[in-house]
Amino acid sequence: MTGNIFGERFLIVSFGESHGYGVGIVLDGCPAGLPLNESDIQKELDLRRPGVSLVSSLRHETDRVRILSGVFKGMTTGAPICTLIENKDIDSSAYEKLLDTPRPGHADYVARIKYGNLNDYRGGGRFSARVTAGYVMAGAIAKKLLARTLGIEVLAYSLEIGGIRSRALTHGEIRESRYSNEVRCPDRVAANKMKKRTLDERRNGDSVGGIVECITLNAPVGMGEPVFGSLEGEIGKAIFSIPAVKGIEFGSGFACARLKGSENNDGLRIGADGITFGSNNSGGILGGISNSMPIVFRTVFKPVSSIPKPQKTVNLVKMEESEVTVTGRHDSCVVPRAVPIVENMMATVLADHALRAGMISPVLK
Amino acid sequence: MTGNIFGERFLIVSFGESHGYGVGIVLDGCPAGLPLNESDIQKELDLRRPGVSLVSSLRHETDRVRILSGVFKGMTTGAPICTLIENKDIDSSAYEKLLDTPRPGHADYVARIKYGNLNDYRGGGRFSARVTAGYVMAGAIAKKLLARTLGIEVLAYSLEIGGIRSRALTHGEIRESRYSNEVRCPDRVAANKMKKRTLDERRNGDSVGGIVECITLNAPVGMGEPVFGSLEGEIGKAIFSIPAVKGIEFGSGFACARLKGSENNDGLRIGADGITFGSNNSGGILGGISNSMPIVFRTVFKPVSSIPKPQKTVNLVKMEESEVTVTGRHDSCVVPRAVPIVENMMATVLADHALRAGMISPVLK
Amino acid sequence: MTGNIFGERFLIVSFGESHGYGVGIVLDGCPAGLPLNESDIQKELDLRRPGVSLVSSLRHETDRVRILSGVFKGMTTGAPICTLIENKDIDSSAYEKLLDTPRPGHADYVARIKYGNLNDYRGGGRFSARVTAGYVMAGAIAKKLLARTLGIEVLAYSLEIGGIRSRALTHGEIRESRYSNEVRCPDRVAANKMKKRTLDERRNGDSVGGIVECITLNAPVGMGEPVFGSLEGEIGKAIFSIPAVKGIEFGSGFACARLKGSENNDGLRIGADGITFGSNNSGGILGGISNSMPIVFRTVFKPVSSIPKPQKTVNLVKMEESEVTVTGRHDSCVVPRAVPIVENMMATVLADHALRAGMISPVLK
Amino acid sequence: MTGNIFGERFLIVSFGESHGYGVGIVLDGCPAGLPLNESDIQKELDLRRPGVSLVSSLRHETDRVRILSGVFKGMTTGAPICTLIENKDIDSSAYEKLLDTPRPGHADYVARIKYGNLNDYRGGGRFSARVTAGYVMAGAIAKKLLARTLGIEVLAYSLEIGGIRSRALTHGEIRESRYSNEVRCPDRVAANKMKKRTLDERRNGDSVGGIVECITLNAPVGMGEPVFGSLEGEIGKAIFSIPAVKGIEFGSGFACARLKGSENNDGLRIGADGITFGSNNSGGILGGISNSMPIVFRTVFKPVSSIPKPQKTVNLVKMEESEVTVTGRHDSCVVPRAVPIVENMMATVLADHALRAGMISPVLK
Repeated sequence: MTGNIFGERFLIVSFGESHGYGVGIVLDGCPAGLPLNESDIQKELDLRRPGVSLVSSLRHETDRVRILSGVFKGMTTGAPICTLIENKDIDSSAYEKLLDTPRPGHADYVARIKYGNLNDYRGGGRFSARVTAGYVMAGAIAKKLLARTLGIEVLAYSLEIGGIRSRALTHGEIRESRYSNEVRCPDRVAANKMKKRTLDERRNGDSVGGIVECITLNAPVGMGEPVFGSLEGEIGKAIFSIPAVKGIEFGSGFACARLKGSENNDGLRIGADGITFGSNNSGGILGGISNSMPIVFRTVFKPVSSIPKPQKTVNLVKMEESEVTVTGRHDSCVVPRAVPIVENMMATVLADHALRAGMISPVLK
Repeated sequence: MTGNIFGERFLIVSFGESHGYGVGIVLDGCPAGLPLNESDIQKELDLRRPGVSLVSSLRHETDRVRILSGVFKGMTTGAPICTLIENKDIDSSAYEKLLDTPRPGHADYVARIKYGNLNDYRGGGRFSARVTAGYVMAGAIAKKLLARTLGIEVLAYSLEIGGIRSRALTHGEIRESRYSNEVRCPDRVAANKMKKRTLDERRNGDSVGGIVECITLNAPVGMGEPVFGSLEGEIGKAIFSIPAVKGIEFGSGFACARLKGSENNDGLRIGADGITFGSNNSGGILGGISNSMPIVFRTVFKPVSSIPKPQKTVNLVKMEESEVTVTGRHDSCVVPRAVPIVENMMATVLADHALRAGMISPVLK
Repeated sequence: MTGNIFGERFLIVSFGESHGYGVGIVLDGCPAGLPLNESDIQKELDLRRPGVSLVSSLRHETDRVRILSGVFKGMTTGAPICTLIENKDIDSSAYEKLLDTPRPGHADYVARIKYGNLNDYRGGGRFSARVTAGYVMAGAIAKKLLARTLGIEVLAYSLEIGGIRSRALTHGEIRESRYSNEVRCPDRVAANKMKKRTLDERRNGDSVGGIVECITLNAPVGMGEPVFGSLEGEIGKAIFSIPAVKGIEFGSGFACARLKGSENNDGLRIGADGITFGSNNSGGILGGISNSMPIVFRTVFKPVSSIPKPQKTVNLVKMEESEVTVTGRHDSCVVPRAVPIVENMMATVLADHALRAGMISPVLK
Repeated sequence: MTGNIFGERFLIVSFGESHGYGVGIVLDGCPAGLPLNESDIQKELDLRRPGVSLVSSLRHETDRVRILSGVFKGMTTGAPICTLIENKDIDSSAYEKLLDTPRPGHADYVARIKYGNLNDYRGGGRFSARVTAGYVMAGAIAKKLLARTLGIEVLAYSLEIGGIRSRALTHGEIRESRYSNEVRCPDRVAANKMKKRTLDERRNGDSVGGIVECITLNAPVGMGEPVFGSLEGEIGKAIFSIPAVKGIEFGSGFACARLKGSENNDGLRIGADGITFGSNNSGGILGGISNSMPIVFRTVFKPVSSIPKPQKTVNLVKMEESEVTVTGRHDSCVVPRAVPIVENMMATVLADHALRAGMISPVLK
C-alpha cells in the first residue's frame, strides 16, 4: 500500500494535481448494484467548489465530474469507478516567483527537501486542497451507498470560525440549514458574525481558522474494530488527510480530561427503540466500535496560511533570510468549504467499515 | 489488511487477550542488522507494567518478554520478529457476573451485539489495555532502530491529570525526569498534586482523566507524505488504537481555531544548524511531512471507566434497566501508564515512515 | 487491498472496461526523477494494439495514451501517475444477443452468477484482454525505470504457437528480432509455420494456443524474498492476471519432475564477472530470490475461446441446452499480442521488488 | 504489506525459523463462531511432520501445536489466532561448515549476498521448508471453515514421483487413499514404484522430484475476481511460497498450447444439479472465477537439492572454486510431505476468497 490509498474494502486511490490536467479518484470495492450517475457526485462537488462565497477563493472552476468506469446502465458493476474533474482556471504565474522563498505554513519547504526540484509546485501541486475534490467524489458515492443500504446520514457544519461559536443546534437544524449560508453554520446570528470576522481579517491581509463538527446518524452498532481498526483511528486518519487539520476529538473530547469517570461514563437505558445511552460523551464509539448513538467529532482547521501580509522566510538559493507576501486567489477561511469534505470523507470510512463488518454485501440485491 | 495490523513497512500484527495465554506481536519489516535482545524490550515493558504505582492496577504481572523469532546471534535478521509475554496473574471471576450488565464506558455492549456470545469477555479480552503491551514491544524495537540510525528520540509525559497541569518544561527535564515519579510528570509540584487528586477520587469510588504530550526530537525533514500518508494521519491512527483516547492535536492544535494566519504561521529563519523556524505552531509537520522541528502532539485520555460507584446499565437478558458496580483491580487513571505506550506507538509510526522514505535501508551496514 | 491492485511499492490500480470510456491505470510509488513522456508508453502500447497483424483482432484502436498526473516538466514527481487510453472503435451489437447463452471458455457464465445482471458484458467488459493495455502502460514505466537504474532488460517472445516450436535462440536474437514479424517469434522459419497454422485454423473456424518465454537479463542478486514475497509467487500472480494464461513454469519447470537432484542443481563457479552458475535450471531464482542468472519462465496461453464454430451452451433464461457461434472481431491466437503484455507485467514485478529491496530509492538523484 | 503476509481477509502472517524457538502463524480474519481446538490443527500437522516415512527426513519433531490466542470456550472469537510449534530436535552442526560454500539448489548464496552475515543459516533458517508448518496450521483452520460453511473439500496427492505416474483416479479414491502410503499416491502399484525409485536414488546419493495434483470439490460459482484478484493468481502465489515448487498449471495446463479452441473450450450443459460443463479443461476457473467444476491444478517440485554427492560450488571467502557434499537429515523427495502443504495452502486461498465474495460472514451464526 502507498500513501495515496485509503480504506480496505471501500478503497480510494487519489491522483491529480492542482494545476495539472485534473484531479480524480479510483474507487475500488463499491458494491455492484448501486444506482449512480454523475449528478449524484456533482451535487456534492458543487458544495466544495472554489468561488462559492465571498470568503472563498476566486478561482473559478466548474468542476464537472465525469465517470470513466465502473458504471453500466446507471448501476455500479462492482468494477473500479474512476471519476475525474479537469482543471480549467489555471494561473500558475504566482508560484514561479515563490519557488525559492517557501511560504510559511505551507509544504513548500518540506517538499523542496524531500523531492528536490521535482515537486510540482504549481498551485501547491499534490499538497493543494484541490486534491480533496477527489475525496468528495468518493464520499458522494459512499453517502449514497450508506443512505440506501443502512439509512446512515452524515451531517457536518461550521461550529466555530474566527472565535465565533454556533449556538447548540438540533440535528434537524443542521440537516436543513447547514448549506443555507456562505459560512455553513446553521445558526444565522453566528453565521453573520463569522462572515464579518472573516472579511474583516481578509481586509487586514489576514485569515481565520475554525472548527467543524460532524454528526453521523443511524450508524448501527458494530462498525469498527478493537485494536488498529478502531473507528476513531480510521476517522482520524481520514480527517488528517484534509489539509489544514490540526486536531480531532470525539464526544466529550479534550474536555474529558477534567471529568470524573462517573461524569463521563454514559449509562445505558431502555428507550423507545430499545437499548440506548443516557448521554453521549463517548461520541457514539466504545472500544473502537459504533454503539448506536450519533457519532460525533470535532476537527480544527488552522487559519489559512496564504496571506498577503509580509512574512519571514528564507531564500533557499541565496541562503539568507527574506520576506514573502502571498498574493493570488486564496480562501481566507477554509472551514466553510471543509464542511462537505469532512462529511464525504467520513462517509468513505463508514462505507469501508460497513463492508468490513458484512453489513453491506459485495453485490446489492 | 485487517484491523490487527498497523504500518506498511515496519508492520505490526497484534495478537492475544487479557486473560488468555498472553499478548504478543509479530513485527515484520524491521531491517536486518539491528542489535536486539530481550532486555531492550523489557525495559520499555517495565514502564508499562501494571502495578507500578499506587494509582495503578493491582494486577501483578512480571511481563517477561520472550523473542521467538527474527533474531540470530543478537542481531535482527530481517525475518519477522515475534515477541510474547504471558498472562500469569489472571482472575476472571469478576467478569462472569458482569456479562449481562454491560459496564458503562466499556466495549461490553458493542462486543455483545457485534460478536454475540463469542467475545472473550474476561478482563476485557481483546479490548483490554493489556493489548498495548504489544505496542510497547514493537515500539521498543522501533525506538532502538530510530536512535541508532537517525538519532531520533521520542519523549512523552503526563501534561495534565485530573485537571492539574504541568508547568512548561524543557526537553532536558522531560528526558531526565518523566519516569521519576508515579504519575510520569517531570514537574514535581504538579506531580504531587496529580497523585493526590487521583487518590482522592479513587477513595470516592471515582477516577480521573488527563492529557499526554509527546515530543519527538531530531526527526529529519521528509518523514510523511501528502494526501493519505500524512504523518498526522498515521500518528492519529496509531494513538487512537490506545484504549481511552478521545482526541489528538498537533502543535497549536484546537487553539489555532482562534489564531490569525499571521499569528499561527511559523516563519523560516537561518539558525545555527541551517534553516529552522521561528516558532512551532505546526507541531513539526507541514503538508503531512516532518519539517525538522520537534514533532509535538497532545492526546487526551478519558477518566477510567471502571469505577466502584453504582452506574446505570441494562440487563441484556431481562431487558430491564439495572445498575452495575465495577469492582476488581483497575487503574484510577490511565495517563501514567499511557506515557510509555504513547512513546512507543509514536516510534513505530516514525520507523515505518523512515523506511518508506528510504531514510533507513532494509539491511543495516 | 482489493482485486484491482497489484504490487506493494510500485503499485498499479487498474480501471476501465472494453466498451466503456476507456482503460487506464493509476501507478503509485514510481520514484520521483524518472524522465517520462507519453511516447515512452506509446511505443509499448503500439506493440499490444489490436489489429497489428493478420492473425489478430480486426478491432482498430489507436490507443493514444494520455498522462493525466504525476509528471511535471518531463519528470515523474513521485505523485501517482494516471494514464488513460480511450475506447474508440466500439461495436457492442454482438454481445447483446450472447447475453443469455454464455460463450464456452469465457467468463460470461460466472459473471452472470456472481454479479447478476449488473456485469458490463459489452466486449467482455472488465474480463476483456483490453484491460491489459493498462498493464502495458504501467510496465512501460517500469521498464524505463529498471533500464535506467539497474540496467535490467526484459525480453519475451513466442516460443510455441499451434504446436510449432521455435528453435533455441540467443539473447541477442530475441532482443533484435522478437517484434520483427507478426507472430513475435525470432525464428523466422518457425514464425512462418506458426502464422500458417494460425491462419489455417482461423479458416476452419478455430483457434490455436501457445507458449511465451520470458527472459530477464541483468537482474541483480537479491530481488524477492523467502516465504510469501517470493519472486516466483509475485511473477505468477502477475502473469495469471493476463486472460487465457493456464500455467507458468520457471527454469527447468515441469521437466524437473523427472530430473535427479544432481542433474537439476546448478553448480556455482567463478566466471569472468565473479560468481556465476554452470547452468540455469533454477531459472535465475533460488529461495524466492534472484541469483544473478537470467530469470527465465514460460507461460502457456489457451487457444482463443471466441470461435465461429457452433458450440454447446445453455440458454440461461429458458434453462435449456443450446448452441452458440461467436462471430465478431477476435484474435485467432493471443500469443503474439501477449508478448509485450508478459514483458511489461514482468517489469512491474521487478520494479516493485527493486524498490522493496532498496535497490532503487524513492527519489532518483 | 510485507513478504511474510498472505491473503486479504483470511490473512496469514508467518514467523519462525528452522532452528530457532519454533514456527508459528498469526491468522487474522477468521470469522467468529468456528469451533476449533488444537486437535483440528494437529491432525493436519501430523501429515506434514518430518520423519513420517522412509523417504523422508530423519529429523524427529513432535510438532505439538499450541493455540495462543483467538479461541475462547472452544470457539473462534474473531480475534487473531496465533498458533505455534516448537523446534525440539535441532542439530545445527552441519550448517556451520557449509557457511562459506553455498549449497547448489539452495538459497545460501542469495541469502549471503542479500543479508550479508545476518541470515540465520541454521537448517535453512527462514528459507527452510519447516516454515510451511505454519501454512498447514492456517490451512487446517481454513479447511474446517470451508467444510462447515460451504461443504468445500480440498484433495491433493502425488501424481508423479521420479518419473512414475499414477493411473487416473476417482475423487473417491483420492479422498480415501491419499494418505494410505508413504508416498501419498492412491494408486498402490505406482506408489510402490515411486517408493522404490526414491530409495534407489537415495542409495545413489541422489534425489527425485515429482508432481502434486490438487482437486477442490464443491467450490461454488463466484470465488475469485477478474484482473489482479484472479483465483489462479492467488493460488499461484500461494503455491510458489512452498519451497521447491517450479511450476503450476490449471486444467489442461501446458497441454492446451497444442489444442484448438474447439477442443479446449468446455461446453455448458444441463446436468442433474443444474448447469454444468461437459469437460473441465478450464480446471474449474473462468475469468479468474470458480465455475462450479472441480478446481484442478498440478504443481511440480524439483528434486531435493540436499544430496550427499559432491557438487561444484565456490568458497566465498577464498573466492575459489570448491566442492560441497551435503550430509545431514534430508528428505530424498519432498513430494509426499508436500501433499498436505498444498492442500492446506489451497484452503487458505479459498477461505480468503469466500470471505471476499461475502459467501462467509465475519460472524458465523
